[in-house]
Amino acid sequence: MSRIAVINPNLSEGFTKKVGDQARKIVAENIDVIALNPKFGPASIEGYYDEAFASVGLLSVMRDLESAPDHAADPIGGYVVACFDDTGVDAARCLTNAPVLGLCEGALRMAAAVASRFSIVTPMSVSVRPLEHLVEKYGAASQCVVRAAGVRTLDFEGSGAAAAYLALKKQAEASLVTDRSEAIVLGCAGMTDITDRLHAELGVPVIDGVSAAVKMVEAMAMLGLHTSKAGAYARPPMKPYHGIFAGFSPQE
Amino acid sequence: MSRIAVINPNLSEGFTKKVGDQARKIVAENIDVIALNPKFGPASIEGYYDEAFASVGLLSVMRDLESAPDHAADPIGGYVVACFDDTGVDAARCLTNAPVLGLCEGALRMAAAVASRFSIVTPMSVSVRPLEHLVEKYGAASQCVVRAAGVRTLDFEGSGAAAAYLALKKQAEASLVTDRSEAIVLGCAGMTDITDRLHAELGVPVIDGVSAAVKMVEAMAMLGLHTSKAGAYARPPMKPYHGIFAGFSPQE
Amino acid sequence: MSRIAVINPNLSEGFTKKVGDQARKIVAENIDVIALNPKFGPASIEGYYDEAFASVGLLSVMRDLESAPDHAADPIGGYVVACFDDTGVDAARCLTNAPVLGLCEGALRMAAAVASRFSIVTPMSVSVRPLEHLVEKYGAASQCVVRAAGVRTLDFEGSGAAAAYLALKKQAEASLVTDRSEAIVLGCAGMTDITDRLHAELGVPVIDGVSAAVKMVEAMAMLGLHTSKAGAYARPPMKPYHGIFAGFSPQE
Amino acid sequence: MSRIAVINPNLSEGFTKKVGDQARKIVAENIDVIALNPKFGPASIEGYYDEAFASVGLLSVMRDLESAPDHAADPIGGYVVACFDDTGVDAARCLTNAPVLGLCEGALRMAAAVASRFSIVTPMSVSVRPLEHLVEKYGAASQCVVRAAGVRTLDFEGSGAAAAYLALKKQAEASLVTDRSEAIVLGCAGMTDITDRLHAELGVPVIDGVSAAVKMVEAMAMLGLHTSKAGAYARPPMKPYHGIFAGFSPQE
Amino acid sequence: MSRIAVINPNLSEGFTKKVGDQARKIVAENIDVIALNPKFGPASIEGYYDEAFASVGLLSVMRDLESAPDHAADPIGGYVVACFDDTGVDAARCLTNAPVLGLCEGALRMAAAVASRFSIVTPMSVSVRPLEHLVEKYGAASQCVVRAAGVRTLDFEGSGAAAAYLALKKQAEASLVTDRSEAIVLGCAGMTDITDRLHAELGVPVIDGVSAAVKMVEAMAMLGLHTSKAGAYARPPMKPYHGIFAGFSPQE
Amino acid sequence: MSRIAVINPNLSEGFTKKVGDQARKIVAENIDVIALNPKFGPASIEGYYDEAFASVGLLSVMRDLESAPDHAADPIGGYVVACFDDTGVDAARCLTNAPVLGLCEGALRMAAAVASRFSIVTPMSVSVRPLEHLVEKYGAASQCVVRAAGVRTLDFEGSGAAAAYLALKKQAEASLVTDRSEAIVLGCAGMTDITDRLHAELGVPVIDGVSAAVKMVEAMAMLGLHTSKAGAYARPPMKPYHGIFAGFSPQE
Repeated sequence: MSRIAVINPNLSEGFTKKVGDQARKIVAENIDVIALNPKFGPASIEGYYDEAFASVGLLSVMRDLESAPDHAADPIGGYVVACFDDTGVDAARCLTNAPVLGLCEGALRMAAAVASRFSIVTPMSVSVRPLEHLVEKYGAASQCVVRAAGVRTLDFEGSGAAAAYLALKKQAEASLVTDRSEAIVLGCAGMTDITDRLHAELGVPVIDGVSAAVKMVEAMAMLGLHTSKAGAYARPPMKPYHGIFAGFSPQE
Repeated sequence: MSRIAVINPNLSEGFTKKVGDQARKIVAENIDVIALNPKFGPASIEGYYDEAFASVGLLSVMRDLESAPDHAADPIGGYVVACFDDTGVDAARCLTNAPVLGLCEGALRMAAAVASRFSIVTPMSVSVRPLEHLVEKYGAASQCVVRAAGVRTLDFEGSGAAAAYLALKKQAEASLVTDRSEAIVLGCAGMTDITDRLHAELGVPVIDGVSAAVKMVEAMAMLGLHTSKAGAYARPPMKPYHGIFAGFSPQE
Repeated sequence: MSRIAVINPNLSEGFTKKVGDQARKIVAENIDVIALNPKFGPASIEGYYDEAFASVGLLSVMRDLESAPDHAADPIGGYVVACFDDTGVDAARCLTNAPVLGLCEGALRMAAAVASRFSIVTPMSVSVRPLEHLVEKYGAASQCVVRAAGVRTLDFEGSGAAAAYLALKKQAEASLVTDRSEAIVLGCAGMTDITDRLHAELGVPVIDGVSAAVKMVEAMAMLGLHTSKAGAYARPPMKPYHGIFAGFSPQE
Repeated sequence: MSRIAVINPNLSEGFTKKVGDQARKIVAENIDVIALNPKFGPASIEGYYDEAFASVGLLSVMRDLESAPDHAADPIGGYVVACFDDTGVDAARCLTNAPVLGLCEGALRMAAAVASRFSIVTPMSVSVRPLEHLVEKYGAASQCVVRAAGVRTLDFEGSGAAAAYLALKKQAEASLVTDRSEAIVLGCAGMTDITDRLHAELGVPVIDGVSAAVKMVEAMAMLGLHTSKAGAYARPPMKPYHGIFAGFSPQE
Repeated sequence: MSRIAVINPNLSEGFTKKVGDQARKIVAENIDVIALNPKFGPASIEGYYDEAFASVGLLSVMRDLESAPDHAADPIGGYVVACFDDTGVDAARCLTNAPVLGLCEGALRMAAAVASRFSIVTPMSVSVRPLEHLVEKYGAASQCVVRAAGVRTLDFEGSGAAAAYLALKKQAEASLVTDRSEAIVLGCAGMTDITDRLHAELGVPVIDGVSAAVKMVEAMAMLGLHTSKAGAYARPPMKPYHGIFAGFSPQE
Repeated sequence: MSRIAVINPNLSEGFTKKVGDQARKIVAENIDVIALNPKFGPASIEGYYDEAFASVGLLSVMRDLESAPDHAADPIGGYVVACFDDTGVDAARCLTNAPVLGLCEGALRMAAAVASRFSIVTPMSVSVRPLEHLVEKYGAASQCVVRAAGVRTLDFEGSGAAAAYLALKKQAEASLVTDRSEAIVLGCAGMTDITDRLHAELGVPVIDGVSAAVKMVEAMAMLGLHTSKAGAYARPPMKPYHGIFAGFSPQE
């Protein structure tokens, strides 16, 4: 196993570069990180509507990777869906033998092992309910609270960055006191670079989804674990697709 | 309120006609039923992969309906997503003020009111886990079991129909005895026409998702209920979409 | 199916008229609404003790309806128990083939389809725990919060009505902010007439139990759904009843 | 504290004597057991319909006891509702300061302390769902299974007793093997006298609800515990009752 | 049955005397209370680390009791583990046929029968999560909240006692209002003597774990209930133990 | 970070060597694996009683490692508790800043990412309930079933190994069919070497706890994650320990 793919389901190339760089920093030396984003779809993902379109973009990138000539020789060992909403992860699992992790799942599985109780702090309040559903899906409902900082993801770049950071830190602090959280999960892919600062200022573990998911999928890939094809993640049965999706029909 | 839209997210026009006909049979006299399917996407929906593409098709149909000239004068009062996997329902709720129901949700909400315990019998075993997730999402986990008949949806048409019916009935009977179920939910949109026969032969309520969802969304529409825009189902924020999805970007 | 019965389990005739009028306003033209209350029992229902007596009154009214001559010719298609505590609903289901819904169940099943998270606002705090049990029973525990306004039902009539409304609205507003609710369920049968005002002032869906339960039971009745007799809601086995209840013994 | 009341909510005096005798056998020497049943209502309790009427009978007996002259001097220290469906327990708690336990609650709370996993074996299958709801209410859903023996309670008396016992034992044995149960709870008040035999033959703890509830309520009474009046079990507010229930209106 | 053992798993003899005295005050006249603590281990129990060592001390005391000559003639009828963390209770159940209860389990099972909702108020915040796990284990998660007073157990003795009491009372009061609790459980073995005062000042049931567990285990012992040996609490299989634990190996 | 410690809490040196070897095979080249077991305690761990003693042995080994001179220079980056019961993991987390994982937790967190539903197959039936509690604790209750093969761990070595393997495989196969499992988790530390064979024969992912926990803790250690000291896993407060545990008292 020598390759991990990190796929950003939105179209922001800056963001793709950022998560690719972070992934490269943390994987083993001999692992190649492929960081990509789709060629079509939304510029960012905020809510269920954007997710629906981004999922197709994600699958498109994965199909290209899985059918590329080098894949037969050296299959991609694992995929990270670089979005904290875990957009399209279930569908992605049907498309490959490799393990697939979203940022939320990666972060939650590590957080639960270092803290008995923890919080996700996410930028926008519209994400709270979708994230609560993920928390339930991943079995962390009795130990994880979701809070919103009331800012937008883009606020973390440019002139508003300081204010955005403070808004987020304020929620994290409130969570440590009011929710008795013992660790903070950063609920957005774009926050990779504030992890260390927040950890230093709060004194509790701060978990970045990009790092957690990349490192966990790398571990799974190195163990040779693959996604089960025996049930919910079975290969999609062959059938025709039409119109703009004609090229996406499942094949043998 | 004079219009209900029933959208089949796959491309089978035969099936669209079937659910449209069933809907027309049961709505109030003065209600128009609009039955449509997308122009692109999968021919049928079997699992997460097909769902991802069908969701976009569904949203495409809904965008056309919501931006059509007659919508301003006489808005569609409610939408039914005519698929038992409730494909794309959350995203669809972001796109409209009208209430939106999938077949599974409609069926489960009615089943829970006529039976203390019940089963979903679905054709393929690959659907069991996705349906179990819906059962959990809709709060019926303590009273609903999911079983698969081991046949494909298409088996219910043509020469294999008798055998398919028997396979399904066998699971339903097993469920009444072994799972102590008191009612049967038909876990596939294509089974509308076996409802009466199965009910007659089993003597317990048999719930067809098409009928349940259409009639429930009609009830909600008549009460003037709309989908809340205050949280998870808020309108998607404006942003550019690119490539083949350029036409789908959310607008004010 | 041409008749729906709405039974107020307490003895307030004013209230019976109110819910009957609301029901008539929303059912299909050809449906007769029968609005009744028992001839014995408590004047209002506040807590478990009142419920025990009101349940018997409810069953008494239903027995009369089910054994009336016109029932054989034209059976009542559905029953609504017009109390937000869903008093006696399980016992009522044993007594009839028709579907039976309480106000809380009707409201919750519709609320869950238009909001990802919502609150019940009820007048008295003594009702909070019983309602929380219903919320759990109907599978909405992960998305529904119960709040009390600290007023009595009767406060909504007469000179204190304005203050009562404000107390209720205050809790509803707090719920939108603090509990992140996206819709409000009115947790008392007597509030039917403030629904529109509260909706206008809050801008989120406001669900009235009377309307929701009547319309949902009408939908179920029109589909020909009946209460399963295969398990928990089977007809009570024949046996003697004695004393003041001698007339209520189950018969073949 | 010198008195415990055991109230059989049905009208079988033979059964009242049986549970009274069992209670007297196990309470402390200085405790008087008052065993009573209502003067009106169903001859036995099988399902929700019977329960509704039996609840009123139960409350009637309790009102008489609480308003009797000796109650002021020497209040009843605790009540047992001698029915495994825990009929009317919540309403009963509103009526008295003393602790109140049903047989199911008493049995489950003790069973959970001697076995990590256990089963309730009840005579009729119609009771399974109501008991499952109690199991959930008392927090034992992850460790308790409910099974029915397919016999009626009365079968345990007279010529069919041997066959009834064997049917029950067969389910208990199946539960030890198939459900991995480690103890058996007898799911019916009338089984007190088979407890020892079943225990001897199965070699695992067999819990009789009468004994468990009586002994637990005696323990609570001796500690001076009373039912909280601060919330759900508050005294019912004063109000008029009418008709055959006129005598039951709550007073100061 | 004439003997109950109350084992304090820490080494504080003052505390052992206190719980022994309280137990003697409440058991039946003819019951002997044996109050003991281990000869090795931690002086007090605050968190998981202390618990691990205290568990071994507890088992050591129990082994001595179970192998003492008088045990054969007159077996100990029940054990109370006198620690609110229920330290080592599962292991203790493997070692004896008698029922075993920790303070938390005893208190929760009684609290749930007198209050629909209640709180545990415990001294240190480090105990909150471990107690929340016990609340979940004992099935009370939907009705019990855990709060910490921010004091240490020892603060309840000596010059800081008044302040400690006030801190605890403040949390209890907050819980009645904010959490809608209807009763208070004292979340620490050392609080036995403030039970009456707090009850008098708050007017709601206040449950002391020592009293609850002792009285409940006495009730179980009198009924002849034993811990099931059929599953999780089976006798440990024979095997060698080495080093300082050589004397603790399980024997036939 | 250059060192991972794998601690076998029982005294079998053969087993310690086996897990150490497996760990060395899968960690990154530059990572040293320290494989140790305690010098006192049980020879194997079968049930709660053995666990209590093994926990102390585990903590003893960890204290030695944490206070060794090389720890200051090059702290151990993560600990694996090499027992599938996750013996003592919570206490271990209080003792170190490094992340700590048991085999069950490691296996479950990876299994849930490659299979929607899966089973743990463990040798002895006495382990089923303790493992079910872990499954609940780790949030996998809705997707994981526990089955026992009815053999002992030692049966996997020596002349009975073939039969033991077949018994285990039979349960695994039953689980794929009856429980609809999509992957198998080996519920015992000693099964590392049958992983590949079982995977080859069943065709679904087979997860070995040793590999999963080692690789996941390595991933966490490489990210610099530490166990939160802000709540349940805070350092144990200073206090005296006595007798044979005098050397284990927590120090500053």
